[in-house]
Amino acid sequence: MSDFAFHLDRTDPATRARIGWWITPHGAVETPAFMPVGTRGTVKGIWPDQLRPLGAQMILANTYHLALRPGSEVVRDLGGLHEFMQWSGPILTDSGGFQVFSLASARKLDDDAVVFKSHLDGSLLRLTPAKAIAIQEDLGADCIMCLDECPPADGAPEVIAAAVARTTAWARRCRDAQKRTDQALFGIVQGGIDEGMRLRSASELIPLDFPGYAIGGLSVGEAPADMYRTLDFTAPALPENKPRYLMGVGRPIDLVEAVIRGIDLFDCVMPTRNGRNATAFTSRGIVKLRNQRHQRDRGPLDPECRCAACYGFSRGYLRHLFLADEMLGPMLVSLHNLAYYQQVLLGAKQAIRTGQLLAYREKIYRLSRLESELEAGEGRGNRE
Amino acid sequence: MSDFAFHLDRTDPATRARIGWWITPHGAVETPAFMPVGTRGTVKGIWPDQLRPLGAQMILANTYHLALRPGSEVVRDLGGLHEFMQWSGPILTDSGGFQVFSLASARKLDDDAVVFKSHLDGSLLRLTPAKAIAIQEDLGADCIMCLDECPPADGAPEVIAAAVARTTAWARRCRDAQKRTDQALFGIVQGGIDEGMRLRSASELIPLDFPGYAIGGLSVGEAPADMYRTLDFTAPALPENKPRYLMGVGRPIDLVEAVIRGIDLFDCVMPTRNGRNATAFTSRGIVKLRNQRHQRDRGPLDPECRCAACYGFSRGYLRHLFLADEMLGPMLVSLHNLAYYQQVLLGAKQAIRTGQLLAYREKIYRLSRLESELEAGEGRGNRE
Repeated sequence: MSDFAFHLDRTDPATRARIGWWITPHGAVETPAFMPVGTRGTVKGIWPDQLRPLGAQMILANTYHLALRPGSEVVRDLGGLHEFMQWSGPILTDSGGFQVFSLASARKLDDDAVVFKSHLDGSLLRLTPAKAIAIQEDLGADCIMCLDECPPADGAPEVIAAAVARTTAWARRCRDAQKRTDQALFGIVQGGIDEGMRLRSASELIPLDFPGYAIGGLSVGEAPADMYRTLDFTAPALPENKPRYLMGVGRPIDLVEAVIRGIDLFDCVMPTRNGRNATAFTSRGIVKLRNQRHQRDRGPLDPECRCAACYGFSRGYLRHLFLADEMLGPMLVSLHNLAYYQQVLLGAKQAIRTGQLLAYREKIYRLSRLESELEAGEGRGNRE
Repeated sequence: MSDFAFHLDRTDPATRARIGWWITPHGAVETPAFMPVGTRGTVKGIWPDQLRPLGAQMILANTYHLALRPGSEVVRDLGGLHEFMQWSGPILTDSGGFQVFSLASARKLDDDAVVFKSHLDGSLLRLTPAKAIAIQEDLGADCIMCLDECPPADGAPEVIAAAVARTTAWARRCRDAQKRTDQALFGIVQGGIDEGMRLRSASELIPLDFPGYAIGGLSVGEAPADMYRTLDFTAPALPENKPRYLMGVGRPIDLVEAVIRGIDLFDCVMPTRNGRNATAFTSRGIVKLRNQRHQRDRGPLDPECRCAACYGFSRGYLRHLFLADEMLGPMLVSLHNLAYYQQVLLGAKQAIRTGQLLAYREKIYRLSRLESELEAGEGRGNRE
C-alpha cells in the first residue's frame, strides 16, 4: 500500500474536525473532500474537464450500475475507469452494498452472496465478496469498498446485528480476495443508529487493518439528529490516522456537522440531482429556479460564486431553460451546485484554520432555508 | 445599414461558389458559413462558449418559439438575445414563417396575419408582418427575416402562386415596419420548385432592396435533386453583391451542393438532432454509436477531428453513454457534429481556393454513407 498515505495536517481543538492530505495513485486529495457522483461513469450533465476547476479532486462511480452496463470487463477492456471516463484524478467505487438496501425488493441475500435481479433486463447479478472485489479490480478505481450489508434505518435489533456480523465476515473475505496492490480497500462500518452495534462493527473491522474506513447505513431515512448522534460515537471509534468516509451524505449542513465529528470524505447525488430539478444551493439560500420571481431577473444565480454558470447567465435565462426543458438548464445548475459543495468544504477548512467552525455551522444552517424566506425574514434590499 | 457590409473575396471560376466576408454589428462572418441552431435560445446540450472553438461564427434562434416562451418582451428585458444566451457573436432570427408550414394544422392564415394556436397552452399568437418585425426587434438579433408564407413541397400551382404573392406583400409591410437600423432585414424568396414562381418571387423582392436574401420553402419534403435544380435557377436570380441564405438546409452534401450554386449562409438542426440520437457525421462516414461493434472500441469517434469530444473519449464510452441514457452522450456527439459541419464548410472554402470544389463534392458524397458500408466496400484495416 505504498501508493497511499494519509497525513493529518491540522486538528480543530474545539471539535473533532481535521484537515488532511490523502495521497492516492492518481493524486492527492485535501480532506475533508466532497466527491461528485458519476454513477454510470459520468457526472450527469458535466464534462469531466469541468470538474477540476470547481475544486473537485476525487469522484465516485457505482459498481452495481457499471457491472450491469456496460459490464466490468468492458470497462477494463476500454482501459479502466480513468480512461473510460476521461478523469485522471482519484476515483472511488462503492461495492454494491448500498443496493442491498436500495434495491431490497429485487435481491436475495444469504451468507454467501447477494443476488440482484437487473433493473435493466431481469438478468441475475450474483455478488459474493470475492466477486465484488474482482469487479472493482476490473474497474480500477483508486479506492474500493468491501461488500457490506446495509440494513434499513428502522431495522429490528436482530436485523442490524445480523447485518453487522455479515459485514464483518464479508470484509474478511474481501480482504483475502484482493489481488491488486494499487487500490485502497476500505472496510465499512454498519450498525444502524445503535451505539453498541456501531462499536461492535468498528471493533471487528479495525483488526483487519484496512487503509481507511467508511461509515455506511446512514442517510437511509433516519432523522438528521440520529445521524449526527451516530457519528458522535462512531467516528471516534475509528483509527485517527486513517481516512473516514461517510457514504452518501448529504445536504450542505450534513457535511459540516459530519466534519465537526471527524469525517474526511463525502459523496452525494444531491448537488446534481437537485440541479437537474432546478433547485440551487447558493450563498443567499436555496433558490427554486422555476419560480415566477426570477422571470426578469438579470442577476446571476449566486453573486458570490465564481463557477462558469454564475458568470453572465441570468436567473431569468436559467428559469427559461428549465421551463423549456432545455439540457443547458440542468447542465448549468448541476455545475453550480457542485461548485457550491466544494465551497462549503473549502469554507469549513478555512473555519478550522481560524477556529471558527462552530460559527461557520450556523452560517450553513441559515443557508439551508429558501432565499425567499431569508429575504422575507430580514427585509428586502439585501440582494445585489 | 452602415453596420453591415458584404465583401466577395473570391469566386470559383468552375462553379457559382464564392467566399465572402459579411460584416455585422457583432462581428464578421466568413461565408459560406453554417449557423448552429439555438431554437429556444440555446444550442441544445452545448455551452455557448464551446461554439466559437468549433469555428461557429453566427448562430440562429427561433422567433416563434421565443415569442411563446419566455416572450419577446422578457428576452428584451433580460438584455436581448445576445445577453440572454451569452453569445456575443452575430445572431439571426427567423420570422415564424416556417411555422406556417410546419405547424399547418395549428394555424389560420389570411392576407393580414397568421394566427398560431400555441403548442404549449393553446393560447393564440397572432403574427402580422409588423408584429413579426416588432418581436424580432425585441429579440435583437443582427439579422432578422421578413414574415413569409412557406407552402408545402407538393402544393398546387395556385397555392404556390398565392404564397409568393402574399410573401411579397408581407415583405413590403415588414420593410415599412422596421424601426431599428442595426438589424439586417432579409427578404425570403418562395415559389416551391417551380422556376417561373421562384423567378417571379425574386423579381418582386429585389426592388425592395433588402440587404440580403433568403431562399425559403426548400428541405420541406422535396427530393434533393429538386432542391438542387431549384437552386440552379434561384440563386443566380439574386443580387451578386448580397448574402444568400438557404433556410433550414441540410445534410453535409446539401451544403456542398448549395455552395456550388452560390449559397453563403446555412442553418439546420441536423447536427444537434442527430447527435442526440447517437448518429455522428465523421471523416470515415456516418457512425451509429449504439451499434454493438463499438462496444470495446478504444478509438476516437473521428480520428481526423480536433473537437473536444474526439480527444480521449472512446467510441466504447460514447456507446455506453447512449445506452445508459446519460446526458453526456448527446452533449459530446452534438458538439462533434457541429464541429464536423464547420469542417465541411472549411473544406469547401479550401477547395474553392485550390479549384478542387467538384472533387471535394465527391468526397462528401462518399462520406454520406455509413462507415460500416464504406469499410465493407473497401476491405477492412483502413481504420486507425
